[in-house]
Amino acid sequence: MQTKDLSINLATVRQQWNLSEAVEACARHGIIAVDPWRDQVAAVGLAEAARVIKANGMRVSGYCRGGMFPAADAAGRQAAIDDNKLAIDEAAAVGAECLVLVVGGLPKGSRDMPAAREMVADGLAAILPHARANNMPLAIEPLHPMYAADRACVNTLSQALDLCDILGDGVGVAIDTYHVWWDADLAAQIERAGAAKRILGYHICDWLVPTRDMLLDRGMMGDGVIDFRHIGAMIEKAGYRGLIEVEIFSAADWWKKPGDEVLRTVIERFNSVT
Amino acid sequence: MQTKDLSINLATVRQQWNLSEAVEACARHGIIAVDPWRDQVAAVGLAEAARVIKANGMRVSGYCRGGMFPAADAAGRQAAIDDNKLAIDEAAAVGAECLVLVVGGLPKGSRDMPAAREMVADGLAAILPHARANNMPLAIEPLHPMYAADRACVNTLSQALDLCDILGDGVGVAIDTYHVWWDADLAAQIERAGAAKRILGYHICDWLVPTRDMLLDRGMMGDGVIDFRHIGAMIEKAGYRGLIEVEIFSAADWWKKPGDEVLRTVIERFNSVT
Repeated sequence: MQTKDLSINLATVRQQWNLSEAVEACARHGIIAVDPWRDQVAAVGLAEAARVIKANGMRVSGYCRGGMFPAADAAGRQAAIDDNKLAIDEAAAVGAECLVLVVGGLPKGSRDMPAAREMVADGLAAILPHARANNMPLAIEPLHPMYAADRACVNTLSQALDLCDILGDGVGVAIDTYHVWWDADLAAQIERAGAAKRILGYHICDWLVPTRDMLLDRGMMGDGVIDFRHIGAMIEKAGYRGLIEVEIFSAADWWKKPGDEVLRTVIERFNSVT
Repeated sequence: MQTKDLSINLATVRQQWNLSEAVEACARHGIIAVDPWRDQVAAVGLAEAARVIKANGMRVSGYCRGGMFPAADAAGRQAAIDDNKLAIDEAAAVGAECLVLVVGGLPKGSRDMPAAREMVADGLAAILPHARANNMPLAIEPLHPMYAADRACVNTLSQALDLCDILGDGVGVAIDTYHVWWDADLAAQIERAGAAKRILGYHICDWLVPTRDMLLDRGMMGDGVIDFRHIGAMIEKAGYRGLIEVEIFSAADWWKKPGDEVLRTVIERFNSVT
């Protein structure tokens, strides 16, 4: 892969820099794209976020994140829909190429996964007209099954693509190696996603052995067991030509290092491993 | 569910008792079946294990465990095959109704999941004649995807059933709620498994939120988010009439409580939650 395809998900350096500092650092390192998180945008203000991104000529590979549709009652579900519409507006304001969706898990106190999945489908259908009106593609990100209870009840590419089939235009998938690498059905589903023109984002980070924390111990490419060349070749063969986004949550390691060292390492590994 | 269907996987009380003590304790509590682990059998000796199980009239719902087929070289793979044949002999000696298989993950240093999966298929094919000759069904247990790297590269019921289709008679699946509860394809695959007469075991424990340890923080039924009634009804509808095995690895909680309290709680929850 070439650095010209690299985007930095700004969660990767969230402990080191605020959004403006992170964007300027990326520019210094020759990186041409970022993916900011809503809380990072809120911390500097939407206008400043849009300004610094534009001033540095950055593409915005995605905007993190919408979703979290299931809720225990109708008011909660409506609040999620309203908040997702705001996220669509913010994504448009920063010039994002898609809004990344982590769909949400079980509502508090519930054990009913089929019901949670229905709430996700209903929520997506409810925000889709607003997304289409703003030309903002919605990227459903299937999350690793270990997050099924509390973060996302969409856990495979197959499941996400089934949702896309139902919803129609304006929806696709963000494929993150961390969440999908284990799936024996991965090759077939990437091919399916490509044929249906549904691949809106490709995110990478590594699976460490052992994984010491279920949320915040994601690895730098090359430090774990994921075969990035193999998966990357499948993604390319499926026709995806977009940015490749590095997204590493790493409380014990990378979040503790200087941001410039993190970016240098990302670039080096991006060129050597992927 | 009725206590007459309950089996205790002896890992549930491995910190409290050796195999003989555990079997006698289960008998005291009116439990009629167990599933011992190989190291527990080795600790008291195979002859004593067989004796105490028979003396207490216990059924043996499964024997844990064979598998771990992938290895970095041919000698390692052959050693795994030889060891699995021994496990089949031991399972027969204790009167087990099946040998449970955790198939193994990536060989050390490898990132090649397709190759690991081939090694699993090859290993299963190599031990199947010995299993058939001993009338010992092989129960492939798909493990949660979070164990794909280091414990099992068979991670869904669908994938396990595909292997069964290739291998033919003498192979089936052990379905453990902990490993499969998240799967959106679960209902269809349980139906498939039942239609093909492949369900050799049904294991239960709960998924805790949060899960504090990826291996040793499994929950007592009712303490987590799994809908046991829903999954149990699917298993029953699929025609399974065998034992229901409670298997809880719980370093911080249940392994620290007196064994009699654990068994009392298992029985109480088994009757109230499942």
